[in-house]
Amino acid sequence: MSSNAALVHDDESVDDLQLGGLCLIQKKKGFRFGVDAVLLADFAKGIRSKRTLDLCTGTGIAAVLLAGKTDTPAIDALEIQPDIADMAARSVRMNGLENRIAVTAGDLREYDKFYPKRAFDVITCNPPYAEAGRALMSSDYTDAVSRHEIKCTLDDVVRVSSQLLKNGGHLVMVHRPSRIADVLGAMRLYEIEPKRIRMVYPRINKPPNLVLIDGAYKGGRELKFLPPLFVFDENGGSSREIDEIYGRCK
Amino acid sequence: MSSNAALVHDDESVDDLQLGGLCLIQKKKGFRFGVDAVLLADFAKGIRSKRTLDLCTGTGIAAVLLAGKTDTPAIDALEIQPDIADMAARSVRMNGLENRIAVTAGDLREYDKFYPKRAFDVITCNPPYAEAGRALMSSDYTDAVSRHEIKCTLDDVVRVSSQLLKNGGHLVMVHRPSRIADVLGAMRLYEIEPKRIRMVYPRINKPPNLVLIDGAYKGGRELKFLPPLFVFDENGGSSREIDEIYGRCK
Repeated sequence: MSSNAALVHDDESVDDLQLGGLCLIQKKKGFRFGVDAVLLADFAKGIRSKRTLDLCTGTGIAAVLLAGKTDTPAIDALEIQPDIADMAARSVRMNGLENRIAVTAGDLREYDKFYPKRAFDVITCNPPYAEAGRALMSSDYTDAVSRHEIKCTLDDVVRVSSQLLKNGGHLVMVHRPSRIADVLGAMRLYEIEPKRIRMVYPRINKPPNLVLIDGAYKGGRELKFLPPLFVFDENGGSSREIDEIYGRCK
Repeated sequence: MSSNAALVHDDESVDDLQLGGLCLIQKKKGFRFGVDAVLLADFAKGIRSKRTLDLCTGTGIAAVLLAGKTDTPAIDALEIQPDIADMAARSVRMNGLENRIAVTAGDLREYDKFYPKRAFDVITCNPPYAEAGRALMSSDYTDAVSRHEIKCTLDDVVRVSSQLLKNGGHLVMVHRPSRIADVLGAMRLYEIEPKRIRMVYPRINKPPNLVLIDGAYKGGRELKFLPPLFVFDENGGSSREIDEIYGRCK
């Protein structure tokens, strides 16, 4: 593990991931990882993988969590914004994970420049949720690229995944429930068959605000829904399952 | 209201729907209505409609419930099995609803024999859930037709609905969660845009066993998920919401 001081810029913070001492560099202001990336890594962790790719990796949160939660020996992480990719690479060095996580700065639409076809058992992605032009855009460009389909669309993510996954390999995504027809439609279009879905509800009596979807490239038709995941319990504190996922004790 | 004795066959029972004195004739043995039809009618009741069609109506349960829960003046109900359609028609007579519900025995694939195009504000359907050949089939033929896509497929239901709905009219379905990609895909194929989805969970910590889906023909892209619906509460009794839907007091 390297000295933190050399790796962290003045406008950045280092956050403890509460997972075997792992930590993550993030901007103090701007896009910071949320519960979605944490749930994504947890949803994907049970799938055996020799090589995993995290698309739209941002800070690298899902890649670092997967390194902590699985024994996958090779994890690639792709981020289009060079300064954010650099920050993710510094997080990898800070955690001493250079031998397991390789961060690449690049555009996923040029995937064939970076990765061989049919190389991955698992691809994870916490993509921009909003269609470009359909929601108020952040004035912070980095933030806007993280939230809106400016640099990559859902169709891009699923199409590229269908080229990079092995037969039977899994694309695991987190998205807004309002986009579920788009996600399932894109998966079917590119021969990624939905296999597992889990709805995430903030509270027991509220609409879901996230959906976790796992599809298999050239998989058979058999979709299983999981029990609901509640983020907060009836007292307004984090639920027991969320505490377990975050590695917190109660 | 007619005399019950003349309307009910020996192998049938009359069940109180606990809704303004409405009741329903069902076979004592064989396919009987379940919570799915009750939830379907409840999910559809908020949509204003001058004319509603219930496809795959079976006993007519959803049509009769919609007559009780809405002020829709004209409700059509289509059932392919003549003896079941006859039973539904006798339920309509028993409830004195002949002026609001018209039961037709016929194949929905021949919809243009029975109904004018673009005539309906709402179409409801509790279709057979299982793809033909993908699940063990009942040896009772009537029961098998109710449960399996023998006489009509999901594609048939959505395609026919797209011909019969007015622009902006709603197709409201209940189905198995495992078929959600099929339902949403068929809707998009026939220009019925998903607008509302509600997952139905038997209990708080179990996978959902039903999904309610409401789509609008030529509607805009804006899908809302509703809060989860739980059938049983933590003590194993029916939940408060289910009691309200069934018109029961606690």
